[in-house]
This record gives sequence, C-alpha cells and structure tokens, in this order.
Amino acid sequence: MRVGDRDYRTVWMEGSTVYLINQNRLPFNFEICQATNYLETCYVIEDMTVRGAGAIETTAAYAVAQSFLEAPKDYVLGYAKIAKKIIESTRPTARNLFYATERVFNAAVDSENPVEATLVEAQRTADDGVKACLTMGELGNNNLIKDGSRVMTHCNAGWLAFPDWGSALSPIYVAHRSGKKVFVYVSRTGPRDQGARLTAWELQNEGVKHKIFDDNAAAYLMYKREVDMVIVGADRIARNGDVANKIGTCLKAIAAKRYGIPFYVAAPTSTIDLNCQSGMDIPIEQRSEDEVLYKTGQTKDGRLETILVCSPGSPAINPAFDVTLAEDITAIITEEGIIKPTEEAIRKLFERV
Amino acid sequence: MRVGDRDYRTVWMEGSTVYLINQNRLPFNFEICQATNYLETCYVIEDMTVRGAGAIETTAAYAVAQSFLEAPKDYVLGYAKIAKKIIESTRPTARNLFYATERVFNAAVDSENPVEATLVEAQRTADDGVKACLTMGELGNNNLIKDGSRVMTHCNAGWLAFPDWGSALSPIYVAHRSGKKVFVYVSRTGPRDQGARLTAWELQNEGVKHKIFDDNAAAYLMYKREVDMVIVGADRIARNGDVANKIGTCLKAIAAKRYGIPFYVAAPTSTIDLNCQSGMDIPIEQRSEDEVLYKTGQTKDGRLETILVCSPGSPAINPAFDVTLAEDITAIITEEGIIKPTEEAIRKLFERV
Repeated sequence: MRVGDRDYRTVWMEGSTVYLINQNRLPFNFEICQATNYLETCYVIEDMTVRGAGAIETTAAYAVAQSFLEAPKDYVLGYAKIAKKIIESTRPTARNLFYATERVFNAAVDSENPVEATLVEAQRTADDGVKACLTMGELGNNNLIKDGSRVMTHCNAGWLAFPDWGSALSPIYVAHRSGKKVFVYVSRTGPRDQGARLTAWELQNEGVKHKIFDDNAAAYLMYKREVDMVIVGADRIARNGDVANKIGTCLKAIAAKRYGIPFYVAAPTSTIDLNCQSGMDIPIEQRSEDEVLYKTGQTKDGRLETILVCSPGSPAINPAFDVTLAEDITAIITEEGIIKPTEEAIRKLFERV
Repeated sequence: MRVGDRDYRTVWMEGSTVYLINQNRLPFNFEICQATNYLETCYVIEDMTVRGAGAIETTAAYAVAQSFLEAPKDYVLGYAKIAKKIIESTRPTARNLFYATERVFNAAVDSENPVEATLVEAQRTADDGVKACLTMGELGNNNLIKDGSRVMTHCNAGWLAFPDWGSALSPIYVAHRSGKKVFVYVSRTGPRDQGARLTAWELQNEGVKHKIFDDNAAAYLMYKREVDMVIVGADRIARNGDVANKIGTCLKAIAAKRYGIPFYVAAPTSTIDLNCQSGMDIPIEQRSEDEVLYKTGQTKDGRLETILVCSPGSPAINPAFDVTLAEDITAIITEEGIIKPTEEAIRKLFERV
C-alpha cells in the first residue's frame, strides 16, 4: 500500500532477516525495522513494533523459518521446537500467531530439507494471507459497500495489521480504488490509540476521507444515523462465532445492534479456532497499566514525549481484547465467503476449505 | 470535601468575587481561581475551568448576582437581562445552568432591592444544590449500595461537578464515610479524560479504592461480572426520562442492559427540563476537534506538556454529550426519591415539589 510516493509491504523477509514497518513509531515517524534472528523477531511481536493478527501471522511464520536457519545442523527439529514455544509465548490472544507457527513447523516435520521447507512455507503463509485479504476486500466491496457508504471501524485492521490489504479496511480500499465514495469513522481506540494513529495514517496515505472520533462517541454517531455499517477485524473467532478483538469492539457491536446498524467482522479463516468452543475459552491478554496512564505523542516542536494523563498514583486495569458474542454480529467476512456467525456456518466453511 | 489535609468547597462567593477550584489544572496542580466580575465568570464556565452541571449551576447563580452588583444604578434590570443571555450562552447542554440563571434573575424581578435579592437567592441556590446532593447520597447509599459493592462510573459526577458531595459519587462517599467497603471502576472519559483526571483524584483524596479503565473496557468488565451497578450523573433530563450526559454514557447504559447490570442516573430535580419532550430536543454541544487530537499531561520532570496523539492532518469530530434513552436506564436518583425514568414518574415528582 501507498506511503508517500511509493508502495510498501507490511512485513517481508530477505535472506535471514525479517523487515517490518515499525508501528510503534507511526504516525510521526516512518521507519523500517530489521530482526536478524528469531529472538529479535519475538521481541518485535511482544513490544508491538508489529501488531495486528495478520501481520503477527506473517511475522511469526518468518520467525519459525529463522529458527530453522539458525538451528545447529544436528539438532534442527529440537531447537526449532523450543523456538516455536518461545514465539508462541509473545502474545496470547490472536489465533493467527499459532496458525502460522503450526503451519510452518509442520511443513518441516516430514521434509528431507526442513530448513528449505520452512522457508518456502513461511513465504506461502505470507502470500496466502495477502490473497485472503484481497478476496475479503472484493467480497465486502461487491456485497456490502455502496457508493457513499459511511463505515465505522475500530482499532487498526488495515494493511498494517493484515498484509497487504487489511481485513476490515480491505473492502474500503477495494471500493475506494474502484471509484466508489467511502467515508470512514475512525475510533481513537484507547488506550493505545491504534485507530487514531494507524488507521487514520493509512487512510490519509490512500486518500480515503475519514474523521477520528473518541471511542465514547460511537453510540452518538449511530443514534444520529451517521453510520451505515460497522466493519472490524478479529484476533480470534471461536467455533460458535464469538469474536475476540481489540478492547472496545464489543461496545460498538452492542450499540450497533441497539440502533439497527449492521456489524461485520472481517477475518481470514486462519483466525478461526475450532478448539475454542466459545468466547469464554479465548485467553484475554492483560497488559501493563502504563498503557492507560500514559500517552506518547508529538510536541509542538516535533519531539516525541510521553506524558501522564491520569491522576498521579491511581491504578489502572488494561485488558487488551474483549469478546463480542455471536448474536451481536451480523455476519463474518472471510476469504471463503460472507457467513452468519453460527457454529453450523463455520463448520460448513471448514468442510469446504 | 477533602483535599490533602483540609476541606474545600467546589465554588463559593466572597464579596463580589467568585472563587472556584481550577479543574483545568487538576490533577497535577491544585489552584483556586478568582472571577471578579460576571464576564470573567462566563469565561471560566466556557473554558471549563469549572465544569459539571451542578458546579455550573452554582457558578451561574453567582454570575447573575455579580451582574446585578455591577449594573449601573438606574439600569439594573436591563443590564442584568443582557448579562443573563451572555451567561446562558456559555454552555448549551446542562439544564442546571438555565435553572440557576432563571431562578436568581426571577428573584430580582419583583423585589424592592434586586441586588440584595439576587445575592440571597444565589446563595440559596448554592445551598439547595449541596443539600440535594447529600440527600441523593443518602438515598443511594440506603437503597442501592451494599458492603462490598463494585460501582462503575463515567466522567466526573463527584463533588467537583456537583457541590459539595457530587451526584453519582455522593452515594459512594456517603457509603464510604459510613464504613461500607466500596470499589469504583473509573472510566477514563475521553476525549478530555475527566474520569481519569478528576474522579480518580477525588476518590484518592477521600481514600476510596478505585481503578481507572479505558472507556473501551466497559463492556469487558461487565461481561466478566466485575461490576455490580453503574451510576452516572446527568446534564439534562427530558420529561420522558431520556438523559443527556457526557459522551460515552449511552454506550455504558446499552452495555449494562445487555449484561443485566443496573444502570442508575443520579441528578437533582434542577437537571430535569420539562420543556424537552424527549432526548431529541436536547441541544448537544459540539466542541473543538483539538480536544480529540491533543492530550495534556505531566512529563517525567514534572512539566505540563500538550502533545498530538493522532495521525497529523486527520480531522476529528467531538460531540461533548450523548443521549441515553429512558428504556436503557434502570432508575433516576433524585433528592425527592428514586424514580423510574418515565414521563409519569417525572410528572408526579414535580407535582410533589
């Protein structure tokens, strides 16, 4: 996707090095970060230099390949098995992380050349992810988005989160590039403000009209009939259709239902976890209270500064995701079709896949 | 209420000067601000040096009295009438502002000594406000709050907003002072973060246990059964029971209903506007986009700094209030009793008053 005057990929691998856009430095600085071994790659996942379920998927796939490249010749599988556990311990909620580590690791198990096999499979995982995003974009654009549609989104489920088209934003990008007028209401997405910092930045670079709103204004915009639909991404989908996604998603879904506005989740099938019976089984990451208490941004003279924005000494609680119940979701946009969020529809999807 | 080692009032008048706690400087600096004439008092309402429906009510009452004090001897009512219009133009949403200006101005109309009459009436308005808050606190404590209750609140409806006990927080303060254990979940309340900055500050000074959460986590805390009830304040209540309050209130009410958690609005009868048939008739203030785009806080070395926290160049939308529909509210706590949010119950309340 477009950044300034050229196109970038979200994450890529050259030789044994993983390259990625440093999302912690956006929107004020655009920097490419390098991770030269799998432990460095683990670190960039953990500290959210790279974030978003799909970008984590691609990065984790490359990390597994890196671990095979680094492994001592006579101990490849053993070394990589430990590495896989370490990679999987970086973030607990997104299903895609585990999808990638299992897929790439399994490609090595019965292979005569496991290092080569994982390199090929990691690249295939990356390419399949991109293809799935484009397909979701086309399905969403053809079936849901009209000329003039006003779409609310939450957090960043754009091309930074899902290479290279995004999940929730892919239908918007496809619609925009096809000449439809689309307007996007971008939630701030506190506490880390990925909507205001990343989604707004993406949309601006692509030239899509948008406005940022504080998360608290979501219901007001719906009540005022300013929103035609909501599209969000997902970090993990249970087999009954419950969806774990960035904290605040659930509030928007409940409000949309209250005001009769369709609420869509866009996610590739790699986000669906058939081992989770319902949302109750999805582990929810609890992050540092500092993410609530402090904000980082740009001063008038262009410096980055971190400031305390809460009453000094008060503690905070910081769950990173919440669960939206299937019954509060209108439909799920996958690369295999737009489906109802039910156990039956999800089972059928996997029979087809 | 307690600040450090002594008690303060939220707003008071001495001679012709209005004194008030500068809420824009909290929580990092505790400063008393002086407004020596009615125009200065208008300015501190407009720029939110003083905010909160009840504190605005008291301040506006004093402002009307100031305008009578300042008026040329032969032109008192004419001068004060223009002043009243200017005072009323400072903030559009809170009913209490208009309640105060009308009440104090009307006290002068048939009086032989209008200046003296308005001074007396302004002080009565202030005292009645305090009494109403304490009564709401006792009603809420006796009927709703149990030992160990976990209460979610939104924005600041504490003693900074409603002298000197608060509206939503009054039941909590009364319960705490009576020896009950109460825990408060404090919403950040973006974009201006009055929860994280003012409510957390109040609770800490009073020694009430609490945690700040980003607004996005409201539904998650309810889903996890961490919240026994929600209590919020109100800026204006329509005759059908619809409630305008700080942006984000409505999301919490809808989520509470979804999860079967009682949702209470605490507000004195001066907040009820019988001229508003429903929430649709309540004017919603639209404020500057800068309040969404920028945050002010304290740097590590103790300076106050304002930083941009959104993608540079992206526009924002900033409605300051939203409307919670009566059917999403469990009950309204007033100084005249706890009532159902219905037209009938509100009518009966005013027949009694």
